Amino acid sequence: MSYDNIPARIEAFRDEMRKAGLQAVILPRTDPHLSEYISSHWHIVRYLSGFSGSAGTMVITLDEALVWTDSRYFLQCAAQIEGTGIILMKDGLPETPSVTEYLIDRLTEGDTVGLNGLLMSIADTADLAERLNAAGLNLRVDFDPIDSVWPDRPAMPADKIFIHDEKYSGESASSRISRVLEEVKKAGADTYFTAALDEIAWMLNIRSNDVHCSPVASAFLYVSPAGSTLFVDSAKLTTETEAHLSKTEVSAIPYTSLTDRLPVIAADDTVLLSTTSASGAIENLLKGHSVIAPSPVAMLKAVKNQVQIENIRNSHIRDGVAMVKSLIEIEKAVAEGRRITEMDVADILLDNRRKGNLFYDLSFDSICGFGPNGAIVHYTANPESNATITKDNLLLIDSGANYLDGTTDITRTISIGTPSEDMRHDFTLVMKGHIAIATAIFPEGTRGAQLDAMARMPLWKEGKSYLHGTGHGVGFFLNCHEGPQSIRLNDTLAPLTPGMLTSNEPGVYLADRYGIRCENLVLTIPHSETEFGRFYAFETITLCPFDRTLFDTSIMTAEEIEWVNEYHAHVRDMLSPSLDTSEKEWLESATRPLD
Amino acid sequence: MSYDNIPARIEAFRDEMRKAGLQAVILPRTDPHLSEYISSHWHIVRYLSGFSGSAGTMVITLDEALVWTDSRYFLQCAAQIEGTGIILMKDGLPETPSVTEYLIDRLTEGDTVGLNGLLMSIADTADLAERLNAAGLNLRVDFDPIDSVWPDRPAMPADKIFIHDEKYSGESASSRISRVLEEVKKAGADTYFTAALDEIAWMLNIRSNDVHCSPVASAFLYVSPAGSTLFVDSAKLTTETEAHLSKTEVSAIPYTSLTDRLPVIAADDTVLLSTTSASGAIENLLKGHSVIAPSPVAMLKAVKNQVQIENIRNSHIRDGVAMVKSLIEIEKAVAEGRRITEMDVADILLDNRRKGNLFYDLSFDSICGFGPNGAIVHYTANPESNATITKDNLLLIDSGANYLDGTTDITRTISIGTPSEDMRHDFTLVMKGHIAIATAIFPEGTRGAQLDAMARMPLWKEGKSYLHGTGHGVGFFLNCHEGPQSIRLNDTLAPLTPGMLTSNEPGVYLADRYGIRCENLVLTIPHSETEFGRFYAFETITLCPFDRTLFDTSIMTAEEIEWVNEYHAHVRDMLSPSLDTSEKEWLESATRPLD
Repeated sequence: MSYDNIPARIEAFRDEMRKAGLQAVILPRTDPHLSEYISSHWHIVRYLSGFSGSAGTMVITLDEALVWTDSRYFLQCAAQIEGTGIILMKDGLPETPSVTEYLIDRLTEGDTVGLNGLLMSIADTADLAERLNAAGLNLRVDFDPIDSVWPDRPAMPADKIFIHDEKYSGESASSRISRVLEEVKKAGADTYFTAALDEIAWMLNIRSNDVHCSPVASAFLYVSPAGSTLFVDSAKLTTETEAHLSKTEVSAIPYTSLTDRLPVIAADDTVLLSTTSASGAIENLLKGHSVIAPSPVAMLKAVKNQVQIENIRNSHIRDGVAMVKSLIEIEKAVAEGRRITEMDVADILLDNRRKGNLFYDLSFDSICGFGPNGAIVHYTANPESNATITKDNLLLIDSGANYLDGTTDITRTISIGTPSEDMRHDFTLVMKGHIAIATAIFPEGTRGAQLDAMARMPLWKEGKSYLHGTGHGVGFFLNCHEGPQSIRLNDTLAPLTPGMLTSNEPGVYLADRYGIRCENLVLTIPHSETEFGRFYAFETITLCPFDRTLFDTSIMTAEEIEWVNEYHAHVRDMLSPSLDTSEKEWLESATRPLD
Repeated sequence: MSYDNIPARIEAFRDEMRKAGLQAVILPRTDPHLSEYISSHWHIVRYLSGFSGSAGTMVITLDEALVWTDSRYFLQCAAQIEGTGIILMKDGLPETPSVTEYLIDRLTEGDTVGLNGLLMSIADTADLAERLNAAGLNLRVDFDPIDSVWPDRPAMPADKIFIHDEKYSGESASSRISRVLEEVKKAGADTYFTAALDEIAWMLNIRSNDVHCSPVASAFLYVSPAGSTLFVDSAKLTTETEAHLSKTEVSAIPYTSLTDRLPVIAADDTVLLSTTSASGAIENLLKGHSVIAPSPVAMLKAVKNQVQIENIRNSHIRDGVAMVKSLIEIEKAVAEGRRITEMDVADILLDNRRKGNLFYDLSFDSICGFGPNGAIVHYTANPESNATITKDNLLLIDSGANYLDGTTDITRTISIGTPSEDMRHDFTLVMKGHIAIATAIFPEGTRGAQLDAMARMPLWKEGKSYLHGTGHGVGFFLNCHEGPQSIRLNDTLAPLTPGMLTSNEPGVYLADRYGIRCENLVLTIPHSETEFGRFYAFETITLCPFDRTLFDTSIMTAEEIEWVNEYHAHVRDMLSPSLDTSEKEWLESATRPLD
């Protein structure tokens, strides 16, 4: 992208602001579905600033333009906005004002702030409006001049929608809609409106290719006992999809008719809106007859059924085979002294996964970080950063795929050359935390936030830590990150329920040295029922050996060593039938008991 | 108490309801300070129902009377209300409607519910009003006919207020008020009103004897930069106290003038009210110029200063000596075959504590439960339940004291006779959890809810559990339970901060067999500072051996055994200088390394 035009683009935008009588505009970096991953049509912040990170907010006033983003993107953002005159606001630093604080400080009583209300959640919009109003400022939530200022704006994605077969999903769309409507009723509403793309894909058993690494279709869905309405671009529909929708009593009407048609269709209903995925603009459209509550879909979607669970197990065999083949290739290249880079590793992983049955796409861009690059938590190699894999350091590989029968997400940290004592020690601390989660048993009702510290304690005891969560929910041929459960410092209040698939990924990152992360997916399963109630456990689903040479057994308990050995034996049993003789030999050696 | 009059008392109450045009009245079992422990003046629920438990709500309609209480009190409440016609509502069971649900079900649109608004928190009052109004019912929050229906109602407590010397508290009242006002300012208010008795005692360095086992004075406090106002019965003041208050720029005016005077005194101020301790009635008095936020005192009060910490250490030596002497007496009585009961044990504990310097009172009624009685979590022995301590079972002793220089709270479970394998196994599981907390190290910002599961995991792994919290904050010559921190399943969002004193008390309770609980108090202390930030640890403050005969070292790690041995050596070092020769010998033996 050329950034020469950025100041001109911002000036064009200011012309629209002046016409509308606005003194400032907030541009959240999201789409009307409040997605983290967005299609090119919605890359407004990138168009107006040059900044391409996945999190941020741009503010344009009549004399300043600013981008707020978090620590992951400080360096990238500074580089991308250089020379444009845009100011970088470092979110999370004590000295950085919030967007609202900035606006209150700079504007004058009576001034008006513009926003496209579809791009901000109900709660955030209400909070913003309250604070601005308290400071004598106005908020207008229908300002959307992007089509006028962006002549070559990419169209909405027009990829066809396809049906996700019940042999994978294990349940019909009609059954899912019925279950959702039961939850809606419990929450005191009649109907449900959702903008969340993964919820729509799950409810209707449909998928598409609209968002990078997320097989969703751009749409809004209104679910009602009297029949449902899908707001979707008709170009995305096929005869087959139309038949599927009609069988499910879903009428398709244009995506762009949302704001006109929704108030009419929902006029007589009490509509449930989700706290997290509905925008302030939608709440406004349904003023007076909506109920705001946690999504009724999130929990149903997170609990996988028996068909899905069997599929998940199968897809993880294929993913494990691809991982093992990739690890062998990487090891071989290094051993033979061939030049191999981080980007080569990503290619190897993609090639091997592509060969597996039912492969659809990656579930996220592979993270392959060697040495110091591994210590950058959200690192993705690019031609400038692309490091060559040489001795002696650690290679961190975090990757995953979407198969028609499941989504995978795995991280392995492997030693290239001879690992140092520090590397082995730190790796073992991380694995002790990983094993604490893998072997946890807990009563019904336990939330991930209660378990999180167990993954961190071995590191904490040595004054080390990691700032990301220990675990996130994982979709089924859908988003790699989904709620409502998680294993993290802050409580999401969602209990870990049998059928939920969650990642277990403690790590540690030593700046300029190396990064370590060990990630498997775990399925919550029933464990026992006693006079004290029901107890659950985790079944580890991911199948791939950890690097044996990185374990320091002198700081492990007998139980921890036994867990590694049993896990490795299980990996060997599950993957060997799909490997050739030399691969089998490699796996045999990689999974032999720890010394 | 005779229950013969209960129906007559309720009828007298209904006469007042009819006069006021009310169809139902809610009587929360608390006082205008929203205390758990209340003076006899406020035992309205006990007077009208006979039920004396510490938690409950009574509802009187024109044809029914009901008491809601939780599982701790199901048996006691049923016995106490027997024959009165009052209905027991078992709180927490799925089939039991809430008070609000019951009222909505029974009343008719247009009916009015009465309440003394001083007895319900702001949040609960708002929630109640909203739900009743949504159902077409009215709520009146100024209904307080108790003086008319209770001819011999006990007067408000008139014990004198005394000054808690700065050599104990380590800080002047003026300094505390200044620090509170700084917090008030940060929350966007000018002044602070509090009804919480322990907050008032802490801020003003005053104590009294108004509430059983809680050395507080009944009062309300309005804190303002222009000088503060204490609403207090003048009979409670001495010349000395008056001089102390006046030096601190606190004017004392009558307790009963609150509702008349507060709106006048606070007329020009924005008043901070605490979410937890301010009542709906107070919010009403200050309508339009209050800010509702977490208490600005709770955190300041919880973080003990260096003078307090030294005092806490000293008071725990005296408390440990009293515990050791008591354990020796109990052991001797059993060994000599003398009859000794649970109530005798409570007396022995009180006698030995009384002999210590600076003893003021118990910090709660001692819990001494032998065998099956130990499995009743909130058990207090009474003449009917009072069990004789015989072989072979476990004796659970949970007790504590208020000294002028600190509050103690300790639980020990000891074996009488020969312990069974099960007892030793379960005791060791509980101790493994206790040690996990005692040895935890955690970064700045960590909340107790993050650590709680570590105390439970050894039990959870065997399908066992306990339903109470693992730890509560402990006051300083004040309430044995205080916030804001805790170690429990539900998050209170208060970080564990150096200077906080918290209990560490996992347990397990096997109905009809025995109960086990192991409790020490732990002080949060700084541990280290690394590139990952500041880390904290716990220093165990309580000094008393655990029963060596109950440890099963075969299921303990080397680190766990080492922790017990080191703790026992420390207890020996700290207590021996205060013991006579034979007591020293006993302690020597009780603290020798585990086999």
